[in-house]
Amino acid sequence: MNAYAALAAQEYFDTLDSIDIIDVNAGNHGRYFATNFDPETNFREFTGRVWSWQNRQWTQNQMFEIRKEWDLPVVGTRTTYMTGHDEIHSLSKNLDVPFVRFWMGFSDHYINVFTVLKNLGLLSEQPIKLDNGQEVVPLKVVKAVLPDPASLAPNYTGKTCIGDLVKGKKDGKEREVFIYNVADHKEAFEEVGSQAISYTAGVPAVAAAMLIATGEWDVKKMANVEELPPRPFLKVLDKLGLPTRIRDEQGDRELSSTF
Amino acid sequence: MNAYAALAAQEYFDTLDSIDIIDVNAGNHGRYFATNFDPETNFREFTGRVWSWQNRQWTQNQMFEIRKEWDLPVVGTRTTYMTGHDEIHSLSKNLDVPFVRFWMGFSDHYINVFTVLKNLGLLSEQPIKLDNGQEVVPLKVVKAVLPDPASLAPNYTGKTCIGDLVKGKKDGKEREVFIYNVADHKEAFEEVGSQAISYTAGVPAVAAAMLIATGEWDVKKMANVEELPPRPFLKVLDKLGLPTRIRDEQGDRELSSTF
Repeated sequence: MNAYAALAAQEYFDTLDSIDIIDVNAGNHGRYFATNFDPETNFREFTGRVWSWQNRQWTQNQMFEIRKEWDLPVVGTRTTYMTGHDEIHSLSKNLDVPFVRFWMGFSDHYINVFTVLKNLGLLSEQPIKLDNGQEVVPLKVVKAVLPDPASLAPNYTGKTCIGDLVKGKKDGKEREVFIYNVADHKEAFEEVGSQAISYTAGVPAVAAAMLIATGEWDVKKMANVEELPPRPFLKVLDKLGLPTRIRDEQGDRELSSTF
Repeated sequence: MNAYAALAAQEYFDTLDSIDIIDVNAGNHGRYFATNFDPETNFREFTGRVWSWQNRQWTQNQMFEIRKEWDLPVVGTRTTYMTGHDEIHSLSKNLDVPFVRFWMGFSDHYINVFTVLKNLGLLSEQPIKLDNGQEVVPLKVVKAVLPDPASLAPNYTGKTCIGDLVKGKKDGKEREVFIYNVADHKEAFEEVGSQAISYTAGVPAVAAAMLIATGEWDVKKMANVEELPPRPFLKVLDKLGLPTRIRDEQGDRELSSTF
């Protein structure tokens, strides 16, 4: 997402108004309920406050407070909720942009289960005492009854769509581009034995490592991806099977054709 | 409920077609979710199969499979689900009646929370193993995070309505009577320090004990309430603050006026 934002800033805009990072999993694992990563990490991400960069200020909201629908390529109209995420911190610092927000897709069913567990106190990390004197952390019990995220991959179907919707001005004119990728759960599993969410999280890390190893990304200090040239990185992603696409006033196309 | 059925059988009908016991709590405890009795007992009642006496045969269903709305005095139209209950067993044996069913009121919210917990495996009585090696019974953890049922009483408001809807024939004519009581959570708490559900469960037991103590119910063998004269029992209930009411073709009135 950082490289997409850097590409937009460098090539598609003179000034940026907003970056909305949209992360939608339109897949189906066929289980009643499961988290795609470790349940403890997953739930912890959604029990706290949500921070976003709005009007060049850090703004605080409750998780699931701000809802927004997006019309996305391939996966169609999807409901997302404003979520805190690492990218917001570095992008708001490294790019000159008044709004950076992260939107994650959740089904009504996910939110219902999550809400029930949270309101009952079952997502708590504080130990509670049972009748028999046992001290137990409720969240650990929830984790133990949920499916192991790795076990979902073989039966996962459907696609993910992750991208940056960037708005701003180019040559004095307002414009809007969506730079994104689409991954398929089944194809990801056939290729690497994981579902698409792990795939889209893992492949960019591999691509970055490759660029550093070849010296193409010569990082002599700690740097975020958006501080490095995005095109070589997107080219490697393309080769690794995670092609970048763009949707703008000229239509929807693979970005590779413009390398 | 047994005494109401006995009264109906003895005084209001020559032949019985059906007894539907309806148990609705239209109260509000002001908490996100709580059970009115011990959560372990409460949930166990609803996780198994449901037995009913239909067409003089034991019939099996899933809990929450059969739903029915009733228009009830005081509490209005309420949704109930067919549930197994002790009374069905003795009433079907002791009275000549082809249908005996028990209907308990549940809110959509109760069913949602229950369904989430059940589907996740959190109502299981089988120990599971946590990451750290601890062996824990999920149901005990759910119990530990839920409010202590006794703690609900001080803030419980609203009313309960419990009764027997009896259908059959009298003097060759079809008729239908609803014999019931209404209790108020707040009044019950002010009187005995418990909410109305405990009140309506406890007061009849006290009344029965009083009748046995005075010798008015001379029980020389194990007997169910419906095998004993109902009027003295209902009279004591009346004095103890749980008056019996009847709704039939002549309207809705206190039964005490007919003692």
